[in-house]
Amino acid sequence: MTKVYNAVVPASGWNEKFTFSPGVRVGNLLFISGMTATDSKGNVIGEGDIVRQTEFIFEKMAAVLAAAGADFSNVVETTDYFVDLKDYDKTAAVRRKVFAGPPYPAATGVRVAGLIRPAALIEIKAIAVLSS
Amino acid sequence: MTKVYNAVVPASGWNEKFTFSPGVRVGNLLFISGMTATDSKGNVIGEGDIVRQTEFIFEKMAAVLAAAGADFSNVVETTDYFVDLKDYDKTAAVRRKVFAGPPYPAATGVRVAGLIRPAALIEIKAIAVLSS
Amino acid sequence: MTKVYNAVVPASGWNEKFTFSPGVRVGNLLFISGMTATDSKGNVIGEGDIVRQTEFIFEKMAAVLAAAGADFSNVVETTDYFVDLKDYDKTAAVRRKVFAGPPYPAATGVRVAGLIRPAALIEIKAIAVLSS
Repeated sequence: MTKVYNAVVPASGWNEKFTFSPGVRVGNLLFISGMTATDSKGNVIGEGDIVRQTEFIFEKMAAVLAAAGADFSNVVETTDYFVDLKDYDKTAAVRRKVFAGPPYPAATGVRVAGLIRPAALIEIKAIAVLSS
Repeated sequence: MTKVYNAVVPASGWNEKFTFSPGVRVGNLLFISGMTATDSKGNVIGEGDIVRQTEFIFEKMAAVLAAAGADFSNVVETTDYFVDLKDYDKTAAVRRKVFAGPPYPAATGVRVAGLIRPAALIEIKAIAVLSS
Repeated sequence: MTKVYNAVVPASGWNEKFTFSPGVRVGNLLFISGMTATDSKGNVIGEGDIVRQTEFIFEKMAAVLAAAGADFSNVVETTDYFVDLKDYDKTAAVRRKVFAGPPYPAATGVRVAGLIRPAALIEIKAIAVLSS
């Protein structure tokens, strides 16, 4: 089945057993899968520390963006899924550093009932638009 | 950092401390951040009344659309996050008035574990496409 | 109100009382509403069986894609909402069959507090891009 899109995989590689791509490029759109602060061995970085987890997610996202020739200036929308809202506001400082706005991307944040990785406190998905 | 997009801000203004934009325009795409029925002073309008909250969210969304030269005829997709599913079906009447379909946008609605504003019963995000 | 988009309705029809479309096409973008394994009579297929529910959702999605002249090779992103994470990993086998990757679409999966259909175990929304 020839896909309309290309998978976007970070330089560090990707596990071919997964049934999703970390990113997908089609035309000038880049869809980035929801990411938790999980490293390549499946361990969550920054256990109990939402700020560190958010930083690590954005490090992973940077690698996907880079693989498409993009960076955070291309990210137009993020969706944050929180397990707990207690410390969600601490993630704003990370966004301020990463996106260096204004302007900032559009964003949505909600508390979910759980994330697939039990130790994950936050998951972030994103849409980016590549410069033409 | 020069962004690939422009922030879309309603005529009533925006708090520059926020690390997201109410809307983001890139090409003919308009991404609208998740909105609750919160006024400019941070108070939730229509406490305990999901219909009034939904109306107020669409009033806020109309202002973001207007700032991009658009209206509800441009909204192609909405995602509704409910705190409770008890009265979610009452929001259909608001959608009927706002979108005046058929046709209607695509839509997804799920119950989340919580919203950032404790008194909010519903949050709505949207994607719009501008006429070219 | 003239919409910027066209509703995409499966050959089996659609209930005009609903205030959303199963799919919406604008340019080469196709937004597919969140779907549960509910049949045309409102009954959930595969009660208690997340694999069967996922299969049925993709059967419904195939019908929406077909109505737009598309198939699963056009799907660039999915979002899965799970009621329970106990058996979520069993849905990977369904994705493997449906998407026949690599490459695979981008994907996000979270556990929500509830879905509108009480017997639904999973809801999936998607974005597709049509070949130009």
